[in-house]
Amino acid sequence: MKFRIDNLQYCNWTREVFEINREANLDAVHVTIVYHEDFDELKEQIKVWEKLLKDNSDLIFLGKDFKDIEKANSEKKTAIFFGFQNCSPIEDNINLVEKVHQLGCRFMQLTYNNQSLLATGCYEKIDSGVTNFGKEVIREMNRVGIVVDMSHSAEKSTFDAIELSEKPIAITHANPTFWHAAKRNKSSDLLKTLSESGGILGLSLYPHHLKDNTNCTLESFCEMVARTTEIMGIKNIGIGSDLCLNQPDKIVEWMRNGTWSKSKNYGEGSKNKTGFPKQPEWFKDARGFVNLEVGLKKIGFSETEINGILGNNWYNFYKTI
Amino acid sequence: MKFRIDNLQYCNWTREVFEINREANLDAVHVTIVYHEDFDELKEQIKVWEKLLKDNSDLIFLGKDFKDIEKANSEKKTAIFFGFQNCSPIEDNINLVEKVHQLGCRFMQLTYNNQSLLATGCYEKIDSGVTNFGKEVIREMNRVGIVVDMSHSAEKSTFDAIELSEKPIAITHANPTFWHAAKRNKSSDLLKTLSESGGILGLSLYPHHLKDNTNCTLESFCEMVARTTEIMGIKNIGIGSDLCLNQPDKIVEWMRNGTWSKSKNYGEGSKNKTGFPKQPEWFKDARGFVNLEVGLKKIGFSETEINGILGNNWYNFYKTI
Repeated sequence: MKFRIDNLQYCNWTREVFEINREANLDAVHVTIVYHEDFDELKEQIKVWEKLLKDNSDLIFLGKDFKDIEKANSEKKTAIFFGFQNCSPIEDNINLVEKVHQLGCRFMQLTYNNQSLLATGCYEKIDSGVTNFGKEVIREMNRVGIVVDMSHSAEKSTFDAIELSEKPIAITHANPTFWHAAKRNKSSDLLKTLSESGGILGLSLYPHHLKDNTNCTLESFCEMVARTTEIMGIKNIGIGSDLCLNQPDKIVEWMRNGTWSKSKNYGEGSKNKTGFPKQPEWFKDARGFVNLEVGLKKIGFSETEINGILGNNWYNFYKTI
Repeated sequence: MKFRIDNLQYCNWTREVFEINREANLDAVHVTIVYHEDFDELKEQIKVWEKLLKDNSDLIFLGKDFKDIEKANSEKKTAIFFGFQNCSPIEDNINLVEKVHQLGCRFMQLTYNNQSLLATGCYEKIDSGVTNFGKEVIREMNRVGIVVDMSHSAEKSTFDAIELSEKPIAITHANPTFWHAAKRNKSSDLLKTLSESGGILGLSLYPHHLKDNTNCTLESFCEMVARTTEIMGIKNIGIGSDLCLNQPDKIVEWMRNGTWSKSKNYGEGSKNKTGFPKQPEWFKDARGFVNLEVGLKKIGFSETEINGILGNNWYNFYKTI
């Protein structure tokens, strides 16, 4: 079978976005439903999603496991998998891991950019790795079936998570630093270890993760994919576009600052570029998957390999959860 | 003036305990009101304290600053100062720092034993120091007037806090490792830096912090005090007994485990010694202050020095908050 999966989007969700994802033939999307929210605030977001799922049931449904990707494919719908970009919904309580799984959570980042109770984020100066509580939580996530996502984590913490987790982990949205040395991108050593452990990397289309940002070319991106497969092999990469369609700039400000700072933090942006960056022309939304298909073919990937990168590798990863 | 201050108690609070503290002539006690509680749970504990303060208003009142220590002394009452042994009540929200100050908080540990959002606890393997959020919180604590307490923190984090804080910090309850090498005790280097920065150490009478535990002798304790003054000078030490009078053993279990672990953590105890340890005979409760007075005199301290150690040094520290 041929699947198309975008394993990270955080859009301002409307019917229009779900329609675009269907036009792109996406069988599954891992959607970020919370960043800094605690457990009660998570429940509010779940309610928002319950309404979205109900109002757009002809386009989407809540995905629980890999079988729902097959179902989506046959019904021409998109399975929506819930994920968190920070561990704040489980607060300081190991028992909430099972609860958030029951609410639909399938991916949870151990950290956003800063230190969390579980591990260190990529914007901290020193990385102490996975904490005492973090070790307990990874074990519990393995048990209940939530994927450890280290996209925004610091390097040692990520190596720790790979070692500690009994199930393969994911970096749902990031690129290799050999191509673009952003703080959020990942070293070749780390990517090699990730793939050797059965883990997977979702390549990001978010301009701050791209060489030349908005001006990144499709050719450059596809060359990067080819070089990444030399490090990771062909079966451990997919797409995690990090698309933030129609989000107002106040959202990225909130993502970066939450409630942790009285001064303003610009994260991947800068004082002069505070808002969401503009997407490259060839990936303005998920319909850019067809451009990726063309670009990957041009650089020499076979059809099977392209299907792997654009969806089947994620599908196989979901089978391991 | 001559003050008696115990700058850390976490008793099972009843009228009897307040009477004992009055018998010990304590003008002020810094009481732990929360460990792992979040902001809402803190408010519940404040309610408990409002009732205690009302029901025992002939013995205690809520202290806000150093003038309340003078007031307590003249009225023969004990001023109660609220403190937190973890930063969980401020959750991930810098704006809650001012709120908890308004609720009476005057001391807050940046960590309990584990990693917090602010810094690293002494039971973690690696200490990454004060975090991004921690830096913001220290600045805010300085501004509103909450003392940074590093009693349960790891060493680098404590050095960081001393450097980052514009106001002197406290280690309200711990002893030097040169005397007893417990994880919770502090190195001579750290204590020297603490005192040079105007910070203060509250010497602990909790058996796990004492040489020979429950069997520690008064002489040994007073010798330790003398050696500590050689490192820190005579003006930067006081008492923070860590008395946990009448607490059932399930409390120490909760202190150690909170909700972070599914397995059992024994903290300073062990599988065979899970509960609260027995106090030494000469410090079964705050009335042991008279024994300390005798012991410190015997080892050669002057009356002024003894008054400093048993209360006046803390009083002077409160003036800097």
